[in-house]
Amino acid sequence: MSRLVMKFGGTSVADLDRIRNVALHVKRERDSGHEVAVVVSAMSGKTNELVAWVKDASALYDPREYDAVVASGEQVTAGLLAIALQRLGLAARSWQGWQVPVQTSDAHGVARIEAIEASGIEEGFRRGEVAVVAGFQGVHAGTGRIATLGRGGSDTSAVAVAAAIRADRCDIYTDVDGVYTTDPRVVPKARRLERIAFEEMLEMASLGAKVLQVRSVELAMVHGVPTFVRSSFDDPAAPRPGTLICGEEDIVESQVVTGIAFSRDEAQVTLRRLKDAPGIAASVFIPLAEAGINVDMIIQVASGDNRHTDMTFTTTTADFERACALLTDKKAAIGFETLEGSTDVVKVSAIGVGMRSHAGVAAQAFQALSDKGINIRAITTSEIKFSVLIDAAYTELAVRTLHTLYGLDRVAA
Amino acid sequence: MSRLVMKFGGTSVADLDRIRNVALHVKRERDSGHEVAVVVSAMSGKTNELVAWVKDASALYDPREYDAVVASGEQVTAGLLAIALQRLGLAARSWQGWQVPVQTSDAHGVARIEAIEASGIEEGFRRGEVAVVAGFQGVHAGTGRIATLGRGGSDTSAVAVAAAIRADRCDIYTDVDGVYTTDPRVVPKARRLERIAFEEMLEMASLGAKVLQVRSVELAMVHGVPTFVRSSFDDPAAPRPGTLICGEEDIVESQVVTGIAFSRDEAQVTLRRLKDAPGIAASVFIPLAEAGINVDMIIQVASGDNRHTDMTFTTTTADFERACALLTDKKAAIGFETLEGSTDVVKVSAIGVGMRSHAGVAAQAFQALSDKGINIRAITTSEIKFSVLIDAAYTELAVRTLHTLYGLDRVAA
Repeated sequence: MSRLVMKFGGTSVADLDRIRNVALHVKRERDSGHEVAVVVSAMSGKTNELVAWVKDASALYDPREYDAVVASGEQVTAGLLAIALQRLGLAARSWQGWQVPVQTSDAHGVARIEAIEASGIEEGFRRGEVAVVAGFQGVHAGTGRIATLGRGGSDTSAVAVAAAIRADRCDIYTDVDGVYTTDPRVVPKARRLERIAFEEMLEMASLGAKVLQVRSVELAMVHGVPTFVRSSFDDPAAPRPGTLICGEEDIVESQVVTGIAFSRDEAQVTLRRLKDAPGIAASVFIPLAEAGINVDMIIQVASGDNRHTDMTFTTTTADFERACALLTDKKAAIGFETLEGSTDVVKVSAIGVGMRSHAGVAAQAFQALSDKGINIRAITTSEIKFSVLIDAAYTELAVRTLHTLYGLDRVAA
Repeated sequence: MSRLVMKFGGTSVADLDRIRNVALHVKRERDSGHEVAVVVSAMSGKTNELVAWVKDASALYDPREYDAVVASGEQVTAGLLAIALQRLGLAARSWQGWQVPVQTSDAHGVARIEAIEASGIEEGFRRGEVAVVAGFQGVHAGTGRIATLGRGGSDTSAVAVAAAIRADRCDIYTDVDGVYTTDPRVVPKARRLERIAFEEMLEMASLGAKVLQVRSVELAMVHGVPTFVRSSFDDPAAPRPGTLICGEEDIVESQVVTGIAFSRDEAQVTLRRLKDAPGIAASVFIPLAEAGINVDMIIQVASGDNRHTDMTFTTTTADFERACALLTDKKAAIGFETLEGSTDVVKVSAIGVGMRSHAGVAAQAFQALSDKGINIRAITTSEIKFSVLIDAAYTELAVRTLHTLYGLDRVAA
């Protein structure tokens, strides 16, 4: 007998028919003799409805009240799924975050899970019960108030529950059948991966792939929880395996590049003719950090006269206007001539643990993009990925070019 | 400074505009210097939606899961109202049942409040906070699971909170402007009562008036909580006082009859030619009691031969078919000749504490109904009310006749 966490997202529990379908998936695993904890999201659309009400009540809403309202969505799904499971003859009970309890920080709306007391769920296992846990939520021990984990938080709940009950694996059921080499809507030849390393998945998620929340992949990596991404729309009697996210050592045959990710949520800011002196970078980036504006890529290029420099950085589209306003305010103090900005850019990244042992991987990309006439505005690299910032108009061309370059295209059947 | 509980039902919080209106009512009372706890129901229609989902998941649903799902409705309203209050500049926080905590029995779906720990709410008062309490729900201390109080339970929550915080009064805001001498839809001349005694209100609610849940009136009576029924649709700046439910001693000028109630949720069963022997009533009513079927009126009439008797009783329309089936099964054991049943009956009642000191009040009614050609099928009386069971077709005629007879008609302006 092994222990299993099964997580179902909003589209998988969008109505009663789909909840009944989820119950069949759970029954299959129980019938195979596994102990099962299920983590559920709110029914698709419910969270948006609740958030809209909160914002209608006040644009400057109290995040503690936001959490109390929005957490109700998962509570409803958990109760309904418990009933649907009982109807199939399985023992089951729902657990709200505060009942487990899932203890979180008090950063309402973006709380982090601090601890999960698993003894109640494990007692249920001994009684043969399926635990149906409301995802996305917990409770702050100090105040006793409900806190939510932020969008996509149910993935994190699932992995954290898996770690707490020492599950043998965590199955994330979603509306796609696994993790792809890139977005199949952009590259029809994208292939489903059988396996992907935690580190690679972390980069993929961070760099724009939306299949899993970044925090959930981090947790899975730290706790070594083998995690499958698979489809809830498969026949419950004969589902496909999906993609396994696992340790690098469990991937037998690895390619140099595993996947191509891209993010349109990028904005570029360039400061022209900064005085090139020690401390100039700090004078730009410390105010941005204090304002809570995340900066991603940074490049600095000396101008021809050796006394000035141009500084380019990227941030999210959401922070773009605030960043421009802040720097314009401090123009005199920082000492630059002009500020140029654009949200018409995209970041394309190639990810693969194989880059560690292969030199020149990024260089091939620069050549291939150049051959297609794509201008690179900025580059960042790390041990297992590199990213290029390019004009948004070239997104599809760049992604397809790199996908083919690194041998990721599906071979026609 | 006094303490106040304000309760708002589903139609009063049906959407964000109405929730904002409720916030204005609360602000008025806070601005007058009162400490305020608000108890809210789910947004109108939400509870029905949640109940429908539960029943769709399984006709034989687990009542603990029903409670977990359905309690989410009040949770949402409480959070939204807290935000709307904050937007008006008031300190406020929401309290779910388990957070207060409101401790209940484990009779899920029809739980009773056993204790309310008011210290958290009272600490909030000292910080100047309005407490917004989710009605209709609590938590069972033994299991830690959410339990709901049954339909209309938010009235009971409000009165129980009022008792726990020793409130000076409890205002029940609803979609009518008070308690009427009878249903104004049936009797256009019905008058709003300025005051009504707890005992009278209890009978009115028990006998069909839907303005308040019976249990809430019991609680208000036991704890002596002065309770107003008033309209949430009045101008928040200049609301009318509504009807005060209070001790008999606080009603200066009382009439013999205060109100006329009626209930269409009645069914009549008659067993013909029972053998008239000791123990015959027990043989009929013990099986009904064991099946959980509530019996209201009972009349027994000996037949002409002195060896047989006819037995008539009433039950709710919901229990009617079960009662008939059960007795038909036991026909031989009980020993009756025929069973006749009808759901086409109505119970009309007159209520007034003045009946205690006035003889012949009911007799006047029997005469007046007879004069209109209305046949009385059964009668029950108690210290402060009497009820007659009549054919449903005569409902309006009977109610208007009694309303006029006891001087309750509004005098034309």
